[in-house]
Amino acid sequence: MGRHERILGLPIARFNERDLIRLIKERFGDSPASLGIGDDCCALRPRAGYDLLLTTDTLAEGVHFDRSYSSARNLGRKSVAVNLSDIAAMGGKPLYLLLSLNLTSDIDKRWIGKYLRGFESAINPFDTSLIGGNVTSARNDLAFTVTAIGEVKRGKRVDRSGAKVGDFIYVTGTVGDSAVGLDILQRGSTKHNALEKRLITRHLEPTPRIEWGYLLGDKKLVSSMIDVSDGLALDLSRLIDASSAGAEIDLEAIPLSKDLVVSSEGELPWERILAGGEDYELLFTVRPSARPEVEHLIERGMLTAVSIGRVTKPPSGSNRVKIIDSSGGDFVLENRGWFHGD
Amino acid sequence: MGRHERILGLPIARFNERDLIRLIKERFGDSPASLGIGDDCCALRPRAGYDLLLTTDTLAEGVHFDRSYSSARNLGRKSVAVNLSDIAAMGGKPLYLLLSLNLTSDIDKRWIGKYLRGFESAINPFDTSLIGGNVTSARNDLAFTVTAIGEVKRGKRVDRSGAKVGDFIYVTGTVGDSAVGLDILQRGSTKHNALEKRLITRHLEPTPRIEWGYLLGDKKLVSSMIDVSDGLALDLSRLIDASSAGAEIDLEAIPLSKDLVVSSEGELPWERILAGGEDYELLFTVRPSARPEVEHLIERGMLTAVSIGRVTKPPSGSNRVKIIDSSGGDFVLENRGWFHGD
Repeated sequence: MGRHERILGLPIARFNERDLIRLIKERFGDSPASLGIGDDCCALRPRAGYDLLLTTDTLAEGVHFDRSYSSARNLGRKSVAVNLSDIAAMGGKPLYLLLSLNLTSDIDKRWIGKYLRGFESAINPFDTSLIGGNVTSARNDLAFTVTAIGEVKRGKRVDRSGAKVGDFIYVTGTVGDSAVGLDILQRGSTKHNALEKRLITRHLEPTPRIEWGYLLGDKKLVSSMIDVSDGLALDLSRLIDASSAGAEIDLEAIPLSKDLVVSSEGELPWERILAGGEDYELLFTVRPSARPEVEHLIERGMLTAVSIGRVTKPPSGSNRVKIIDSSGGDFVLENRGWFHGD
Repeated sequence: MGRHERILGLPIARFNERDLIRLIKERFGDSPASLGIGDDCCALRPRAGYDLLLTTDTLAEGVHFDRSYSSARNLGRKSVAVNLSDIAAMGGKPLYLLLSLNLTSDIDKRWIGKYLRGFESAINPFDTSLIGGNVTSARNDLAFTVTAIGEVKRGKRVDRSGAKVGDFIYVTGTVGDSAVGLDILQRGSTKHNALEKRLITRHLEPTPRIEWGYLLGDKKLVSSMIDVSDGLALDLSRLIDASSAGAEIDLEAIPLSKDLVVSSEGELPWERILAGGEDYELLFTVRPSARPEVEHLIERGMLTAVSIGRVTKPPSGSNRVKIIDSSGGDFVLENRGWFHGD
């Protein structure tokens, strides 16, 4: 940790690194497996027989969030969730987190306290510790970068590239809620009913599907897996590309929440559902032989997921993912994600 | 990797994550020890008998650098150096890096290509790979966050907290060059003589002292170590605090480059030397019994370092670091680092 913050003569954040280290130590303590917070590095002793998983992701103000509707607590929780979701998608368990804060000069200890309480509440369900990080002044915009370190038993890691022709494609939970929740927030009203609040929460505080990802990986039930961060359409095409295959999915099979259906008043927002992003659900493929066991887990309530299609041979065109609508025709998305041609 | 970049309706960077992954794969290839770039996480298999070291640090525009004098290549090199310096300070060897880019919309592929070439040139001397990362749009300012993963043999890790009364305090290389180089840059002239250019390079492209840190840790010659990122005075007080000791150093023993001495024209800038920061040298303590071997390494040219003082009992006052000037009096720094009271 640590580095000089005044070299360009700018005002420094009201909150400094020593304060942060103290706050983190008070809140999170020292992890037994690590050297702890405050040395040049934190040290880890990985378990024999396990591989480590590493991922990093940033929440940037004005790009991923707006402080007019994201609270410090929301941001603390979301900083954790977006990273743990990547660990879940590999079948891993999260172990450690590093936190890099870029703080504007208006941020005070109270705000950071709330952020850290949100952060803590999001890691508490798991046996996971915050073991280090960094705090830096920012001239204009807040940014939160988390690096998550997870573990997975050797041989149980799930990559994106294992899907084979004939595999069933599943998705967990429901998709589209986060994008519709964001739309509600961006309309600017501050009064929301219970239904709207639930959709908004899916956007502000997504839930990483750690238990489901671990269960599927540990039981070796899936041939490939990815988390849905940029929209079902784009993330499915990534998985299918990595597996050098094609996919055909059934629009009507896509799991939607009652809240989303009710809020749409008869006109389902398919662009938002398929390309809105930030669902943080898991998208995975299952060999036909493993399907009964997956369905058994679903029936027993240990997993919430539905099959939405099959893996096919790669089609001749550029679009590897075919979406079939209720009339049996091709559904064509105008916008398949945050960049074109993927 | 991956997440939606258009949720707030802002223009996205001209450079997207798929481009970045492609550029990184072309430039850095897939590491044999990792699953490689492009899945949800990268996977590592740590060696038995080694601990892992983790550290993260950010370079933020307007805080740590100004594009009017830091080139893309400078920033690529410095992003690596500031993180590897923390690995060096634990006696570790760097293994892997994760890179998180927050890019403003004016950044194009050419700029990023230069940044990555700088990044590559800085990791090339070491057996180190870029194994993953993240790219995000930024509204106003660039930011580069690197997470470095290193390894250290069990029992050879060097913490900050091991200094004991009577230990000799050493520092590598020379200090103050980076701060004086920054001062030259901030004067705004674009014409610099060879001496000025060398001082500027110490600021723009610091050298992480990996070999020296590893050598000292591997031979178990040091009782504590820290890298000098926030200035010799502040980082020494951190080491001394962590070791619950005091320190007395001799101002005249502090190693200065000829360039700095010549450029100062007879008036040595002690505030900049002691509190300027960004030296990325190693500050370490040596037991009297280990001193002959350290001096032997220095004589043989395997290490560049000098002793600048001794570890003492903690003094009664709040200032644990005493600096003795050439007349034998106390030298008092006005500004000991980027925040007071540390």
